[in-house]
Amino acid sequence: MRIGVIGAGWIGREHIRRLTDVIVGARVTAVTDIDAERAAEAARYPGAAVHADGASLVASEDVDAVLVTSWGPTHAEHVLNAVAAGKPVFCEKPLATTPEDCLKIVEAERAHGGRLVQVGFMRRFDQGYRQMKEVIDAGRIGTPLMVHCAHRNASSVEAYTSDMAALDTAVHEIDVLRWLLDDEIVSAQVIVPRSTTRKHAHLTDPQFMLFETARGVRIDLEVFVNCRYGYDIQCETVGEDGLVRLPDPAAVGVRTAGAHSTAILPDWTGRFADAFDTEFREWVADLAAGRAPTGPSAWDGYAATVISGAAVESRASGRVVTTDIPKRPDFYAADGRP
Amino acid sequence: MRIGVIGAGWIGREHIRRLTDVIVGARVTAVTDIDAERAAEAARYPGAAVHADGASLVASEDVDAVLVTSWGPTHAEHVLNAVAAGKPVFCEKPLATTPEDCLKIVEAERAHGGRLVQVGFMRRFDQGYRQMKEVIDAGRIGTPLMVHCAHRNASSVEAYTSDMAALDTAVHEIDVLRWLLDDEIVSAQVIVPRSTTRKHAHLTDPQFMLFETARGVRIDLEVFVNCRYGYDIQCETVGEDGLVRLPDPAAVGVRTAGAHSTAILPDWTGRFADAFDTEFREWVADLAAGRAPTGPSAWDGYAATVISGAAVESRASGRVVTTDIPKRPDFYAADGRP
Amino acid sequence: MRIGVIGAGWIGREHIRRLTDVIVGARVTAVTDIDAERAAEAARYPGAAVHADGASLVASEDVDAVLVTSWGPTHAEHVLNAVAAGKPVFCEKPLATTPEDCLKIVEAERAHGGRLVQVGFMRRFDQGYRQMKEVIDAGRIGTPLMVHCAHRNASSVEAYTSDMAALDTAVHEIDVLRWLLDDEIVSAQVIVPRSTTRKHAHLTDPQFMLFETARGVRIDLEVFVNCRYGYDIQCETVGEDGLVRLPDPAAVGVRTAGAHSTAILPDWTGRFADAFDTEFREWVADLAAGRAPTGPSAWDGYAATVISGAAVESRASGRVVTTDIPKRPDFYAADGRP
Amino acid sequence: MRIGVIGAGWIGREHIRRLTDVIVGARVTAVTDIDAERAAEAARYPGAAVHADGASLVASEDVDAVLVTSWGPTHAEHVLNAVAAGKPVFCEKPLATTPEDCLKIVEAERAHGGRLVQVGFMRRFDQGYRQMKEVIDAGRIGTPLMVHCAHRNASSVEAYTSDMAALDTAVHEIDVLRWLLDDEIVSAQVIVPRSTTRKHAHLTDPQFMLFETARGVRIDLEVFVNCRYGYDIQCETVGEDGLVRLPDPAAVGVRTAGAHSTAILPDWTGRFADAFDTEFREWVADLAAGRAPTGPSAWDGYAATVISGAAVESRASGRVVTTDIPKRPDFYAADGRP
Repeated sequence: MRIGVIGAGWIGREHIRRLTDVIVGARVTAVTDIDAERAAEAARYPGAAVHADGASLVASEDVDAVLVTSWGPTHAEHVLNAVAAGKPVFCEKPLATTPEDCLKIVEAERAHGGRLVQVGFMRRFDQGYRQMKEVIDAGRIGTPLMVHCAHRNASSVEAYTSDMAALDTAVHEIDVLRWLLDDEIVSAQVIVPRSTTRKHAHLTDPQFMLFETARGVRIDLEVFVNCRYGYDIQCETVGEDGLVRLPDPAAVGVRTAGAHSTAILPDWTGRFADAFDTEFREWVADLAAGRAPTGPSAWDGYAATVISGAAVESRASGRVVTTDIPKRPDFYAADGRP
Repeated sequence: MRIGVIGAGWIGREHIRRLTDVIVGARVTAVTDIDAERAAEAARYPGAAVHADGASLVASEDVDAVLVTSWGPTHAEHVLNAVAAGKPVFCEKPLATTPEDCLKIVEAERAHGGRLVQVGFMRRFDQGYRQMKEVIDAGRIGTPLMVHCAHRNASSVEAYTSDMAALDTAVHEIDVLRWLLDDEIVSAQVIVPRSTTRKHAHLTDPQFMLFETARGVRIDLEVFVNCRYGYDIQCETVGEDGLVRLPDPAAVGVRTAGAHSTAILPDWTGRFADAFDTEFREWVADLAAGRAPTGPSAWDGYAATVISGAAVESRASGRVVTTDIPKRPDFYAADGRP
Repeated sequence: MRIGVIGAGWIGREHIRRLTDVIVGARVTAVTDIDAERAAEAARYPGAAVHADGASLVASEDVDAVLVTSWGPTHAEHVLNAVAAGKPVFCEKPLATTPEDCLKIVEAERAHGGRLVQVGFMRRFDQGYRQMKEVIDAGRIGTPLMVHCAHRNASSVEAYTSDMAALDTAVHEIDVLRWLLDDEIVSAQVIVPRSTTRKHAHLTDPQFMLFETARGVRIDLEVFVNCRYGYDIQCETVGEDGLVRLPDPAAVGVRTAGAHSTAILPDWTGRFADAFDTEFREWVADLAAGRAPTGPSAWDGYAATVISGAAVESRASGRVVTTDIPKRPDFYAADGRP
Repeated sequence: MRIGVIGAGWIGREHIRRLTDVIVGARVTAVTDIDAERAAEAARYPGAAVHADGASLVASEDVDAVLVTSWGPTHAEHVLNAVAAGKPVFCEKPLATTPEDCLKIVEAERAHGGRLVQVGFMRRFDQGYRQMKEVIDAGRIGTPLMVHCAHRNASSVEAYTSDMAALDTAVHEIDVLRWLLDDEIVSAQVIVPRSTTRKHAHLTDPQFMLFETARGVRIDLEVFVNCRYGYDIQCETVGEDGLVRLPDPAAVGVRTAGAHSTAILPDWTGRFADAFDTEFREWVADLAAGRAPTGPSAWDGYAATVISGAAVESRASGRVVTTDIPKRPDFYAADGRP
């Protein structure tokens, strides 16, 4: 499978490495970036062609499928180009920065008549979440009623804004919980706890988010991107008959100097490295088999944009914000979501 | 120390047993109950005198200190009697069922000129919470910002009402968190998740409660009294530099048939048995030393009644309810709270 | 119950405090020590009489039961005095320093016609070991086949000798495993691993001990008394159908600076404080009820002395040493061991 | 890298799948097996040529490197063929079934003048063991003194013999501990605990093995291949200043019906799947880079055969058996073992 990559920033280069070194059956044959030099550098390792822009890359005969890892506001254009060309496209989150653009993609894909788009929500491919879904789907904890989550990063860069807590950080939980519960999120509310002083002055951190699903499940999510101690993802689903909790990553236990300790990962790269590998391995396997993609769909990307936007709005207004996401079209109902 | 016990129901008899068999330096010398037969039966084991009513018991020359374990609405009267008699009094929660009655006790105690009242919030005497407080007070996690809690019982009796989720259940967290954070709770909000079907029809269960403190700490508390799997108390305080989490009770690990498992306690009696012992041991030690009690004060009892009442009101109204608790009087400021 | 205490060293004073402050129904009425001044000081707090020697204390009309906490080589004499006087006697381990002296006590007790002696092996009263025994006795792990143990202290004093690793340290596992498995230990072998350099030069540390029981269960025990990191007791019993493992003591979990950590106890006092309390509470309850003691018997004390002696001999000779303990007499068979 | 596979049994087919689907840069181009039909079937998926025998496969111009997964007694012949042909060869354990044959390979490789052979001990590629090695090498636990291990399988097939407990099962610990400690094993001893009844009658199970290293580290290893509850690998290294313990595989925690439980893997395939992937990924990367292999060497294979043989002999004789492995030749000293 010959992949063209649009956007050669950090995540683009990371995925080029992954597709080249880790994923059997894939090859990066084309690269483009707004910075031509960066594109050339990124193309060197896989020996890919450099394209002047996304449109030319999408159109290339050497490109079977497109990977969009450019700046968020450009995603919609590239994805729409790919769909117009009838080529499978994997788009890093967000699918688009506005619900309207997301819906344009949905419409284009439906007009095409079959799924082409997959959105890069990698948590659905994480072993822990998959085990959790198995436990829930097997009925071991009964009907889910509540989910308690925490999403903590050791620190955030100055460019990280308060809106990004919802748009870039919480959006991972938003997607994975919709999938985990097979339910839609109908409202969002953001509460602002006492702020840490260990942060850039402009930032509101932590934020405590509440979501409600169509079936009445209540989700609470602590987003804390300057927690200092490490990268830490917690998720506990409470059902009628019991609960299931995400494990911490396995790490050796050490006993020294009066304490038993286990290391906590410094950042997300180690935490979800296997999930990223699985995400691309399954995507390439779907493509190679001529199947429509079975990962997060354009509809999921649309919903995530609406819901994370509602959280941003709630923080601004101090009120509960409803999402008014319509019923999922049948077109997406039968997708083979793992 | 000769103790008179008012109220010989389950908890009264349990405390009689504790004071007789476990606590050195205490002796139950008098018992009364609205049911004279029950009083007589409870008095037999410690060889105590049976009194016709609380007033006569409080007045007895054979009673150095009073333990109130009667029906909640009668607490205020008995406590006020004891204070009027200048006798130390330990009152099971609630101190009184209305803020007004709590304040009467506060006023009476202040008029007396020294603390006489201790309220039976036993969690402050639990090893886990005490370790947590040490960690926080030592500055190991920095300034607290959020607390995540769960209070789960396996099942509730039919007489347990939706209001009791705040008044009888959450009230334990309300007290212990005020103490843990050395902070006041200024508002309460109750959110109602999807209900379990494993409960009596009249009950709203689970309830998800949110509290804010004067310093802006946000507390979330899942109260779920029909969780089926066991009695489970969780508490995690997140600070600027790290977090501290209550341990599960120690239990042997068993590996059989494809699983590693540890037992969860069926109810609260085992979970807080040591805390109850410590609570009474320290109370009796204070009395024996001629010290004012150092456990939860009448002011703490007042605050707990106001805050749990605010939670009840919030569930009814669907709104955030502020507590308007005044600043703690200096009279209580110097208490030797452990 | 009026207790006379022979030996006012550290452990003697600790037990005097326990019997005075913690155990309902017991009172220390007499104290003696080879150092009269030390005896006087220890007697002050409980307001006990000071005796010139053990014989006079045992004979005193104010002494219902005797507690022997003197220097090991004197135990046998005091215990025999108490048995001769027909008084219950609780003897800290060892019961006696030679098998011959232990058997003299066994014979004296049998001549008396009923159990009087309890030996101070407190682990049988620890919640963790009791849970483990319940799991085994309930058949949940099937027939036991192996036990893996570790007994670690942070550091040892200079007076601690290589023999004491068996006689004073491993002896606790020797007793508790005989009870746990309801089986006798028939041989001992000591293997000497590479030594730590963090110890007094004369000491062999760690030592790795192997025991075999009459039913063929194999026990391995790491004794490491200068492990530096804390006091740590591990025990895992492996059976035909599964295993059961002692828990670590409950302690809050803390996440800071890249690690999740829980504190390890610095020494044994905290680890077995509850077990000591329970041990004396049950002993006093047995006495008060006029029952024979149900804790570790003189026979258990005899076996422990033989087995720990075999371990000492094995370290010297480098060979497996058999214990040749005869079948337990029926006299001890029906004891109410908890 | 074009790989020829000798031996198309279960493990051979599993590695063919891995090299085809998971490992970038490798391709299975040739297959042979004593059963020609089985070879043909295994060759179909990767589209490989079928060879009549190992010699022809090794000689093939389409084979850059050889993978030996045939029956153990045939390993030496195939490896020697590959070395004679100057081709890199990856040999599943054992390298050879006798020390003499192992040494022939060592001599052939030394005559060749550079490493060609890697032996399939995959545990060195497991994240847990690698973390443990990092902790030890960083000096965090001080000089290692003891290692406690358990190797448990849920059940064994009838063909599994008592000798295989050492030769096929313990051999994994033998290799990984030599690497972990960077030390040689100088003696082996096998002790036979009470046997489980849940096994085929001919089998001695469990077996308790003791090893000593040149530096005096003592290793104990429980091998129990019918433990029933699951596949369970435990390893704890105790040093002068602390200890480090292998984690259990991460798995969701579930609370239902009075217990907190986590699943235990049913067999080794899931436990070491990642280690197998890493093993082959690194092997192929070494080959592709024109480097000598950096995984377990022919010398390691020789040592493992000697040591596991000593364990077999000890079980038969009941005595400690020394291994008399000579000092590792400089030829192997500089290998880039991870």
